[in-house]
Amino acid sequence: MSASLIEAFSKLVGAEHVLTGMFAAPHYKDKRGVYSGNALAVVFPADTNQVSAVVSFCTSNRIAIIPQGGNTSLCGASVPLADFDRKLYAHQVVINLSRMSSIRSIDAVNYTMTVEAGCTLAQVRDIAVQNNRLFPLGLTAIDTSCEIGGNLSTNAGGIGVLRYGNMRDLVLGLEVVLPDGRIWNGLRRLRKDNTGYDLKHLFIGAEGTLGIITAAVLKLFPQPVSQATACIALRDPAAAVSLFAHLRSTCGDRISAFEIVSRPCLDLVLQHIPDTCEPFKQSYQWMVITELADVLNVPLEAALRSALSSFTEGAEEYLITSNKDQSASWWNLRKFISEAQKIDGISIKHDVSVPVSQVPTFIELADAALKLEFPGVRIVAFGHIGDGNIHYNASMPEPVKNAPFLAHSNKVNRIVYDIVAQLDGSISAEHGIGQLKREKINSYKSALELELMRGIKHTLDTQGLMNPGKVI
Amino acid sequence: MSASLIEAFSKLVGAEHVLTGMFAAPHYKDKRGVYSGNALAVVFPADTNQVSAVVSFCTSNRIAIIPQGGNTSLCGASVPLADFDRKLYAHQVVINLSRMSSIRSIDAVNYTMTVEAGCTLAQVRDIAVQNNRLFPLGLTAIDTSCEIGGNLSTNAGGIGVLRYGNMRDLVLGLEVVLPDGRIWNGLRRLRKDNTGYDLKHLFIGAEGTLGIITAAVLKLFPQPVSQATACIALRDPAAAVSLFAHLRSTCGDRISAFEIVSRPCLDLVLQHIPDTCEPFKQSYQWMVITELADVLNVPLEAALRSALSSFTEGAEEYLITSNKDQSASWWNLRKFISEAQKIDGISIKHDVSVPVSQVPTFIELADAALKLEFPGVRIVAFGHIGDGNIHYNASMPEPVKNAPFLAHSNKVNRIVYDIVAQLDGSISAEHGIGQLKREKINSYKSALELELMRGIKHTLDTQGLMNPGKVI
Repeated sequence: MSASLIEAFSKLVGAEHVLTGMFAAPHYKDKRGVYSGNALAVVFPADTNQVSAVVSFCTSNRIAIIPQGGNTSLCGASVPLADFDRKLYAHQVVINLSRMSSIRSIDAVNYTMTVEAGCTLAQVRDIAVQNNRLFPLGLTAIDTSCEIGGNLSTNAGGIGVLRYGNMRDLVLGLEVVLPDGRIWNGLRRLRKDNTGYDLKHLFIGAEGTLGIITAAVLKLFPQPVSQATACIALRDPAAAVSLFAHLRSTCGDRISAFEIVSRPCLDLVLQHIPDTCEPFKQSYQWMVITELADVLNVPLEAALRSALSSFTEGAEEYLITSNKDQSASWWNLRKFISEAQKIDGISIKHDVSVPVSQVPTFIELADAALKLEFPGVRIVAFGHIGDGNIHYNASMPEPVKNAPFLAHSNKVNRIVYDIVAQLDGSISAEHGIGQLKREKINSYKSALELELMRGIKHTLDTQGLMNPGKVI
Repeated sequence: MSASLIEAFSKLVGAEHVLTGMFAAPHYKDKRGVYSGNALAVVFPADTNQVSAVVSFCTSNRIAIIPQGGNTSLCGASVPLADFDRKLYAHQVVINLSRMSSIRSIDAVNYTMTVEAGCTLAQVRDIAVQNNRLFPLGLTAIDTSCEIGGNLSTNAGGIGVLRYGNMRDLVLGLEVVLPDGRIWNGLRRLRKDNTGYDLKHLFIGAEGTLGIITAAVLKLFPQPVSQATACIALRDPAAAVSLFAHLRSTCGDRISAFEIVSRPCLDLVLQHIPDTCEPFKQSYQWMVITELADVLNVPLEAALRSALSSFTEGAEEYLITSNKDQSASWWNLRKFISEAQKIDGISIKHDVSVPVSQVPTFIELADAALKLEFPGVRIVAFGHIGDGNIHYNASMPEPVKNAPFLAHSNKVNRIVYDIVAQLDGSISAEHGIGQLKREKINSYKSALELELMRGIKHTLDTQGLMNPGKVI
């Protein structure tokens, strides 16, 4: 049976584009090594019609579909399930979009480009630059491996959200292969279109559970030419939030990044990453790195200096530069936090958001609750404070204590997420739900909202074959 | 029967908040005087629970619901149908949200405010200013009468879209009474939340066909302090589009407006609106008014001058000012076009969009086709060229010829919309569908997209009682 199915896929896309066995194995496990499953095959369609044909075949044969791009999901959204109810379907297949990597068109005057789902983010950014434009999404470590289809399906975030929005905000139109194999051409290149329900927003952030995004019209932006960076030592997160509100009202939307770094993050980076150094002579508990960028040649250093000198609510010390090397050396202190943590050991991670004004309360309450329950716990808190999005990770600094601590991850999660919920926050700000938080959202979303989501899922994916076991 | 239903509504919201007969009549006809219908009553709930109770009652009694705010719809979306199939439902009722006009909260640090659907746009803008913030949506003539619920339900646009986006882009969360009367609390104040399908986007722009929006969390922005305006005479629309691309790449997103005005518009304004005058000594065919705004005190006049002096593709002459009176006098030439047209007589109007790069082709093709078919026709084309959104109106200058011309409106519409479709455009850029274009979209949207829309409508509004006969 499996063999004949694989043969059928081979007929649809060519035998050399169907991987099985050990060649397929890397596609069955996630990047973090947490999730792995098995499938009939990994199928690599060449174009939208082939995606459509493969999906139609799966639908007719009750085969579950796992859409996959660069397979960089942090929540197990892009790999087959390890186990599933065989009464629902008999097989799983991975449809990998990586072969669909054409830039279909670029319109510099309309500030748009139409790209296929398998383009990598780095490729899209490069082509934009070649056309004197900016595509602002940036995920640093994975730009060269993550793909646009995945960026769309997870509504990707990152440092640039503050200025340019999430991936959802960077899209004008989509092409989607629906769960029944039909192709929806919603590749609009329009800034304004009020002709009914805006269907594209259903598929963005749906993690492939409502269809397979095959192409998209992306918004482009002018390229900034001037830039200035500040590194600011602050009393506490409350000072950071006040500073952000102050900077926004004085410098406006030319703030292209505003990231907070706590002392434990900095210590880990200084310890594990070569060529990094403390920015100030003194060792402060909290630090913000912020950047202004402008397409005009304007004196941004002066703007930062003026804004910072008029800020009186808790800045201990600050440095400003428009030198790229100096700026890069500060940014390394932020960008290498994940890497430094990984070297140091495993931690219990949270990607949460609350209203920006509530970040200080969140950190205060979560720190207090965890320290009470787990004396000696180390909190590594950092991230996109300008979006209210904090990466909040907990571990025990001594390896011997960390293993038993990790066994309490459910309890740690509950403590953190309950505080997030109490502050009207989100338990997944940018990484998505996937398999990782599929059960957890049941405790943090209203029954009505889950019912609405299931209703929409059922309307679009009647047979429930599109990335089952993820999100909902 | 009707009397007992009206009594039931009175019990739910108080007798003084249920209008019937001549008191209700103004709510049964649209602002333009094109659509009018009849209903049992206009019911004015005081809060979300009352909306929920009224909707539940309607659902149990098969009464169709027309959600209404300021009743400023340009497409008949907010009034009862003149005629309907009584096999589907026996009665209609208007639920007017105007009493729900509380600002529930404002969080200047989070740059958000939570408002009820019945707040007027002017009220929201004023409260933002009082908190040293900007709410950027502006619809000039109707700011004091249109309401936030309607702005959301029609995904309102206007001049500020270029810089700040449509209403859809200005919202973080919604509260909605669903067609079965249940209340969905999606009032999130988060910049990032990737926990499943983003349901709010379904209700925005749905013109009340999927539920009644009762409250929203709106995004606020810093207030600009510096400003400069340019009035530029241009060879043709192609020059205007090139100029826009050039300005965006040199001045960036501080362009807060970029509007095109053609000679016939200008002539109408100069003829009918007192205290208006030609900006240049010479009489040019095309003109753009653009504005830069910034929260920093920067020399925007100089920026405009530098950008315009380096533009070589068809600017005939230009004027720049940062004087508010001078700027206002130029803006009046744009803002009074609709008024001047109305005084001049009736015309066949279109609110269309195409990719920005295609605007010149659209105007060229549509002008040629209409002039061929209707010699002597006057085209009044103007609007948001930076968004690709043109208000494209046709009439005969001599009143005696205009009446017979108006009888050809179907043909005129078809000529214009077919060209829009050919250029991948939209037949309703910002005004919506309502009753006006409900049939027309069947020719311009794919059968699959309409099927998806109907599927979603049926999932949320099983009985089809929520603003029936509008949109889909």
